[in-house]
Amino acid sequence: MISVVVIGSGNVAHHLISAFNNNETVNIVQVFVRNLEKGIENFPNEKITHSFSNLKEADVYLICVTDNAIASVSSQIPFKNKLVLHTSGSVPLNHLDSKNRKGVFYPLQTFSKSKTISFREIPICIEAEKEDDFALIEKIAKAITLKTYSIDSNQRKAIHVAAVFVCNFVNYLYTIGNSICEENKIPFEILEPLILETANKIKTLSPQEAQTGPAKRNDTETINSHLNFLTDTSQKEIYKILTKSIIDNGKKL
Amino acid sequence: MISVVVIGSGNVAHHLISAFNNNETVNIVQVFVRNLEKGIENFPNEKITHSFSNLKEADVYLICVTDNAIASVSSQIPFKNKLVLHTSGSVPLNHLDSKNRKGVFYPLQTFSKSKTISFREIPICIEAEKEDDFALIEKIAKAITLKTYSIDSNQRKAIHVAAVFVCNFVNYLYTIGNSICEENKIPFEILEPLILETANKIKTLSPQEAQTGPAKRNDTETINSHLNFLTDTSQKEIYKILTKSIIDNGKKL
Repeated sequence: MISVVVIGSGNVAHHLISAFNNNETVNIVQVFVRNLEKGIENFPNEKITHSFSNLKEADVYLICVTDNAIASVSSQIPFKNKLVLHTSGSVPLNHLDSKNRKGVFYPLQTFSKSKTISFREIPICIEAEKEDDFALIEKIAKAITLKTYSIDSNQRKAIHVAAVFVCNFVNYLYTIGNSICEENKIPFEILEPLILETANKIKTLSPQEAQTGPAKRNDTETINSHLNFLTDTSQKEIYKILTKSIIDNGKKL
Repeated sequence: MISVVVIGSGNVAHHLISAFNNNETVNIVQVFVRNLEKGIENFPNEKITHSFSNLKEADVYLICVTDNAIASVSSQIPFKNKLVLHTSGSVPLNHLDSKNRKGVFYPLQTFSKSKTISFREIPICIEAEKEDDFALIEKIAKAITLKTYSIDSNQRKAIHVAAVFVCNFVNYLYTIGNSICEENKIPFEILEPLILETANKIKTLSPQEAQTGPAKRNDTETINSHLNFLTDTSQKEIYKILTKSIIDNGKKL
């Protein structure tokens, strides 16, 4: 068994702790929670600590805290030469304190506390300085997922930027769709099959091949009528810039 | 049986003809195809015509042509007082020629010829001038889908604009994600679970609730590091404007 201490109690910590529950390879021996009042669902209270000085010895320390706190948390671990991992898409490996061995265990998914998720299909991006450590991280990852990738800090940054486009920004476009529906007394559910099919298409078509719509056809009449329809300045601006980019991109091909 | 003549041979015609294949309620008696060389997959050649003067008499004419051609096509139908429907998201009902009864049969989905699709979950937006015609269109729609909606021309325009945001623009963000991956030698498949989960979330969470990411957290450090990372001017501009809009939108709530 690989013994792991999890540091953090946010969305990522929450989902990882529950994914490792009753695991045959990995044993979460302790969770560090900063907030004295906070517990972890389905994790025994007696294995929770609020103080770095009470941190147990373990094979691996898995830091699941906000990006800005990773360096400071890693320096407060009261051990040396342990394997310390962070779970962030945007923090380079070398931000971890050098008294311990450094690694990254980045699950590429969007986590909401209120939505359960199966880990088996979630890609875990792994980085380590030493081959042995890479193998150990891979073993931990393979205990919960089928998909592991060797990704260096630069590539991880690229993935994180790409993820902002395909997840955060995409969800914001759903928000705009939702507000247009609400303003016109249309149930948002009417867009659900379109949203799901648009996502599903990428399994069989490249997004370039899947592109449809007025911008792709350079259909200026429809584009102008949509711009006239939109009253929200910010929505109008987003419509313009994305349409222009789709048209320009089409010319390049 | 309701007899239907389909006019057009593009993506929507193609998918509708195949959805109505062997249907118990609707019989497609003829398809009008402008291009002399073009056939329709799984539809007998002898039932295809290339001339409006050869158009058969039927209960319903289903116009599946490009938006700009709808008015002209509807005026070329050599009959009177038939039910003539168009399938467009953005053309008002009254663009159809007045010698026939007017209706709209708008399937709200993204169609690619190379990808088959099940019609059962596709919302069909219905509009008609007369109650009887509405009932007839609803009967045709229910022959292939579980989901029909009464949607007037204004609402349909709103849906079409919303669809551009949640489908066309979303797919373009996938294209940007793909190109960032390619530039950094990362397989695009790594983003697939994230894309699917982002779409699936809307079944259980409102997009407002589902929003995550650096813009939502107003995490200026990460935002600036992403902007420094992006070299493509257009991608940078899209990143900026969507981030600003997410931040401004968060302040309103």
